[in-house]
Amino acid sequence: MRQATHTLNIETNGPGLYEFTHRVLDWCQQQEMHEGLLTLFIRHTSASLTIQENADPDVCHDLQDFFDRIAPQHGNYLHSAEGPDDMPAHIKAALTQVQLSIPLMNGRPVLGTWQGIYLFEHRHHRHTRRVAIHLLGE
Amino acid sequence: MRQATHTLNIETNGPGLYEFTHRVLDWCQQQEMHEGLLTLFIRHTSASLTIQENADPDVCHDLQDFFDRIAPQHGNYLHSAEGPDDMPAHIKAALTQVQLSIPLMNGRPVLGTWQGIYLFEHRHHRHTRRVAIHLLGE
Amino acid sequence: MRQATHTLNIETNGPGLYEFTHRVLDWCQQQEMHEGLLTLFIRHTSASLTIQENADPDVCHDLQDFFDRIAPQHGNYLHSAEGPDDMPAHIKAALTQVQLSIPLMNGRPVLGTWQGIYLFEHRHHRHTRRVAIHLLGE
Repeated sequence: MRQATHTLNIETNGPGLYEFTHRVLDWCQQQEMHEGLLTLFIRHTSASLTIQENADPDVCHDLQDFFDRIAPQHGNYLHSAEGPDDMPAHIKAALTQVQLSIPLMNGRPVLGTWQGIYLFEHRHHRHTRRVAIHLLGE
Repeated sequence: MRQATHTLNIETNGPGLYEFTHRVLDWCQQQEMHEGLLTLFIRHTSASLTIQENADPDVCHDLQDFFDRIAPQHGNYLHSAEGPDDMPAHIKAALTQVQLSIPLMNGRPVLGTWQGIYLFEHRHHRHTRRVAIHLLGE
Repeated sequence: MRQATHTLNIETNGPGLYEFTHRVLDWCQQQEMHEGLLTLFIRHTSASLTIQENADPDVCHDLQDFFDRIAPQHGNYLHSAEGPDDMPAHIKAALTQVQLSIPLMNGRPVLGTWQGIYLFEHRHHRHTRRVAIHLLGE
């Protein structure tokens, strides 16, 4: 049993879902493990992770729209010093994932046919988001 | 330290919460590990996982009702080609879990007294859902 | 590769976010591992876990306020025998996390600068909440 770690930098340019499935799969493959547990952890509180359908781009649009409606920019928040998009960003992060773990079988993460791994950016400014990756197995 | 993997097929017949705690506990017990980490991962984007109270069935009813209200079928979605229940299903999946990890102590997952493991089906048609299980420990 | 387990008891006194980052970091440090995977699991269904900004306390206030609005006490629930704050508690738990895993690199969990680990209490009475901790690595 051994482990490997890595940090991905993901550039974002405004709110939305950024798929990075291939970067994860590529790094996994380089570790040459057959079976194990892969963990992704985003080191931020105003962007988050989600696994969603990567077939129809409308799904991402509707998801973003849903979260904008449930946590609107003008929501009468106490926390406003970092801009009107910051508190909604924290709410959206709380409602989605800071971390995802995916078992590895037969040499690859067991993602379903339509499952893609996404960084969900909730803020308007450009950011470089850091996602820590950990793989344990053999 | 060693690991074991398995895939559970879970039959669903319309939206709702399907408990499968016993299937997980049974499989775990067969692996004869004393301490470790158990991970469940659902390979779909229109059904999800959750851990909830398994004492009063009304809890499951109210949960389903809450998610139907927050992500209604007629929600003015762009993504509608797969039926009116598909986009709400993706939203409900984003709001709950694609994956759960539970530590194993003294030979069993440390679920609390009232915690049950549920597959949360969000679609109306019958489905066979696949949940990958990974156990690491000794 | 080795593993260590522990259970934290966390006292709560009404709804809100209780940070316990330092208790987790202190325990981790005592295990003297350089690289690994840390998992926290809350053994309850009416309190949950979340990682949030720990700089401005207003963020916690606004988060709590958001969840109170989305899952109000008087929400016409079937499940009411355990008090009006119980069903909203289950909903809030379903929307946040029962479990968090954080990779360990260079001897510590890779939390971002502003990330704190919180127990999110959803009930009004005093409780002692149990959080299982599992660490795997070397």
